[in-house]
Amino acid sequence: MRMNPYSIGVDLGGTNLRVAAIDESGVILHRVSIPANYLAGPDRIIDQIVSIVSEVRAEADLTSLRGVGIGVPGFIDMKTGVVVGSANLPGFEGFPVRDEIQKHLNTSIILENDANAAALGEMWMGAGRSYKDLILLTLGTGIGGGIVLDGRVFHGAQGMAGEFGHMTVFPEGNPCGCGNYGCLEKHASATAIAAMGRMMHFGPEVNTAADVFALAEQGNTRAIMVFEAMGRALGIALANLINVFNLPLYLISGGPLPAWDLFAPSMFKEIRRRAFTFVRTGARVEKALLGADAGLFGAAYLPFQ
Amino acid sequence: MRMNPYSIGVDLGGTNLRVAAIDESGVILHRVSIPANYLAGPDRIIDQIVSIVSEVRAEADLTSLRGVGIGVPGFIDMKTGVVVGSANLPGFEGFPVRDEIQKHLNTSIILENDANAAALGEMWMGAGRSYKDLILLTLGTGIGGGIVLDGRVFHGAQGMAGEFGHMTVFPEGNPCGCGNYGCLEKHASATAIAAMGRMMHFGPEVNTAADVFALAEQGNTRAIMVFEAMGRALGIALANLINVFNLPLYLISGGPLPAWDLFAPSMFKEIRRRAFTFVRTGARVEKALLGADAGLFGAAYLPFQ
Repeated sequence: MRMNPYSIGVDLGGTNLRVAAIDESGVILHRVSIPANYLAGPDRIIDQIVSIVSEVRAEADLTSLRGVGIGVPGFIDMKTGVVVGSANLPGFEGFPVRDEIQKHLNTSIILENDANAAALGEMWMGAGRSYKDLILLTLGTGIGGGIVLDGRVFHGAQGMAGEFGHMTVFPEGNPCGCGNYGCLEKHASATAIAAMGRMMHFGPEVNTAADVFALAEQGNTRAIMVFEAMGRALGIALANLINVFNLPLYLISGGPLPAWDLFAPSMFKEIRRRAFTFVRTGARVEKALLGADAGLFGAAYLPFQ
Repeated sequence: MRMNPYSIGVDLGGTNLRVAAIDESGVILHRVSIPANYLAGPDRIIDQIVSIVSEVRAEADLTSLRGVGIGVPGFIDMKTGVVVGSANLPGFEGFPVRDEIQKHLNTSIILENDANAAALGEMWMGAGRSYKDLILLTLGTGIGGGIVLDGRVFHGAQGMAGEFGHMTVFPEGNPCGCGNYGCLEKHASATAIAAMGRMMHFGPEVNTAADVFALAEQGNTRAIMVFEAMGRALGIALANLINVFNLPLYLISGGPLPAWDLFAPSMFKEIRRRAFTFVRTGARVEKALLGADAGLFGAAYLPFQ
């Protein structure tokens, strides 16, 4: 059987190792997800990747495979395919991930930071389908993100572009582990929402951002305040990005996305006040669509670029 | 006589209309500067440009002319060469500057925003000579700037990228005409330095940023405070840019540049605190070199791109 060209995307994020074969029109042909034991070290993870990719590839026509894209939670030297630094993948620093995988799989292997891959995935098959330029902010434990310019990830000089989580939004705001005060991720991540919720003394049963959201949904005005504060921080950061980039699209993803109606009004209020170009240029700030699959789609898109 | 390829740069900034023929190695072959009466309207200015360019061109070998680049203080539709908006050029909005000039001069005409042209000029012949990626911030009445990525101006969707002056640095800071509070240019432009100086009640003879600088040079501690405050605002904005862009070089130009030693310490302190990637990536924040000629060099560079 003659197949459409397809690629294989690998997402090393979170607790699962996820792999999908996706054809060039974005149809998922086959997908596999297994719990990943990152503590076992790079050799074991590489073995797992090779074995799953082989399995996924066996389901399809070999000649149509365009390559394998891998989203990695860390900084990558794009020229060498080496993971330069990663807080989430102990033992991977300095490890030649690309070459080690290429030894076992006779196809082109492309590595990308997972947050960048997610931005690319949203452009390819998500909320950015009709765009070639966008910024994605992903709200999680921290705040990650990616910049896509003219259809490609913008990396900066050392692949460290898009550190949106550490943009200063309140110069005397909450302290951050990076040594700064008022980093965006200390005011607008899921972790920040949970922490602001705890400041409100809702009680021991309210621990997570989802708990604060549930309370706000019930009409609790102090829980609603938490999301208003979070939206303000997000709006200040987005206004700065709009002033600087003049892109047509800015996307928000991550766990707090269901609370959009609670944080979006204060977010847009700050954007309108602080980015005079926002209304003039018709820029859009919208929800991302692919959720946790964005990185998988983005990784699969890499060989098609 | 056989000449090196050369181009003609035109700078429509400020009070003078400046034109220079510059060869591809950056040598100025001929330059002219005349007072420009922008109030006379676009037709009169176009005539002046055509006449000076013709004069400059007459000094050189016609066959070696690569084109004319024009730096314009306004937003330009890059596809059509029309000035979309300009606070400084009344009557130019919607005016087809490129086509009108091209009617009279049989060579390629390229328009560029003057702040972007200045960034390009610094890359070509200024402080960014060994770089292809940089950001330039120009401190003047407001704060303008340009982004150069991979050797070319980054414009954004509508040519409005690089509105650094309206980045929010203090969310509850000084009010700005754009409708925002705490815009960078209300805390770090030459105008802001003068205004902060007036807040200090130095007396009627201290009116301009240069006056405040002179006082600070004499050791006046309150005048020194003005530059420290200005450096902090600049540092917050630069830290955000470093976190987002991961570029190798950020340049500062404009009238307050001689006060570098007064504002740089507080600027670098904020950058180090607020951009954890600054030290890691070896990014540089430096003085621009070309002063008021940056835009002229950048305009002349456009036909060589």
